[in-house]
Amino acid sequence: MLINAAPDLPQQIRQSGALHPHSGTRGSPIKSVMLTGAEIDQIAGLLSLREREPFTLIATAATLDALASNPIFGALAPELVERRVASLAEPLQLPGGLQAELFATPGKVPLYLESSTAEAGSDSNVGIEIAAGGARIAYVPGAAAVTPAMIERLARADVVLFDGTLFRDDEMIATGTGTKTGRRMGHMPIEGEDGSLAALASIAARRIFVHVNNTNPILVAGSPERSYVEQRGWEVAEDGLEIVL
Amino acid sequence: MLINAAPDLPQQIRQSGALHPHSGTRGSPIKSVMLTGAEIDQIAGLLSLREREPFTLIATAATLDALASNPIFGALAPELVERRVASLAEPLQLPGGLQAELFATPGKVPLYLESSTAEAGSDSNVGIEIAAGGARIAYVPGAAAVTPAMIERLARADVVLFDGTLFRDDEMIATGTGTKTGRRMGHMPIEGEDGSLAALASIAARRIFVHVNNTNPILVAGSPERSYVEQRGWEVAEDGLEIVL
Repeated sequence: MLINAAPDLPQQIRQSGALHPHSGTRGSPIKSVMLTGAEIDQIAGLLSLREREPFTLIATAATLDALASNPIFGALAPELVERRVASLAEPLQLPGGLQAELFATPGKVPLYLESSTAEAGSDSNVGIEIAAGGARIAYVPGAAAVTPAMIERLARADVVLFDGTLFRDDEMIATGTGTKTGRRMGHMPIEGEDGSLAALASIAARRIFVHVNNTNPILVAGSPERSYVEQRGWEVAEDGLEIVL
Repeated sequence: MLINAAPDLPQQIRQSGALHPHSGTRGSPIKSVMLTGAEIDQIAGLLSLREREPFTLIATAATLDALASNPIFGALAPELVERRVASLAEPLQLPGGLQAELFATPGKVPLYLESSTAEAGSDSNVGIEIAAGGARIAYVPGAAAVTPAMIERLARADVVLFDGTLFRDDEMIATGTGTKTGRRMGHMPIEGEDGSLAALASIAARRIFVHVNNTNPILVAGSPERSYVEQRGWEVAEDGLEIVL
């Protein structure tokens, strides 16, 4: 998750160009990057941020360890890209007046570490809560289950971005794209009595599915599954989505 | 470099859909991937090919070792993605009637391995020569210099795709985007008496600059530098470029 600027950034700062690339050939407005895990789709984008522009990389010890075990991420030069270890539920102050906390979320270690000695600790897969100017957003792109502590945290958010990987737990098997269930991959399904729709039915926040797999029929506008989640108050994220709090 | 299909593929095979994604949700027509080195821009794209589709990954021992030192590339499941070690100047038979050879090219180890014990061997950075149906193409995206052996190989090609990273050796320094010369990064400049224009002036092949850095003024249509290389018979590659042999 890229933290570009505070959602409550004053208009004069927006107009100053603070959200646009700095002057110079390769300037970037990105000040901080927070990671929710070390799965490929969570970290591969870092390789596109390696052009010697400074930022702070914030993640749990487990995630930073996974990065450090891959020499390729040494391309994020340590003298420019500060690694900051975040503990769970530790309040973090970010540029632009943002506050953030990482919180425990059931999940698993990245696939490419499954055969290693790495074990899924409570900090292998996390969610992020971001607050600014009295508004809160929760970002949970991967969740194998919803815990009571998560419910408590999500209930106070204005917007929840939640794991929408699969509609059905056996979807990868049914479509011939894989041999594992969603839960085996660390992702709870949307449907069913132990799916995310049921688990988060009590949340008042604006709720948006993210991390949607290309087998998930909610991606298809007008599909029965899309209607099903929309009727229950959910949205489906799309490229370029902007959220105003 | 992705090898999709032979340039001399019969028309009936083209029309059969062999160049299009297979049936199924995630089919890919890619049969083989050859690497010229393990720098990030040469290998990061592999992470987008990890959806459990089979292909053969062909590279030198140095490059495959660099990949293996990064657990993240374990996502290319060994039971689906065969690693094939290629020696320099060893003729390789590829699907579609293609023949290929990797050849020594002066260069260096990837930046992220510079501080390790890895030393630049003759197989850290290579070029590729591909032949099919009597036509030849040479692909040299990174070259610190041109050797007599390279001249001999490039002279027999119909098309040469060559390292166009920088126009001037001090370009990164002059534009404030870096502190190193091109040669320090393993890339000879285009201009100058020891640049690529001079080194390859005797080659009769169609010549196209690739791997062009965003500081290189040949990217700007109508610039003096673009005119300079075009007047000397060179083209500048662009996204979507197709070459018919």
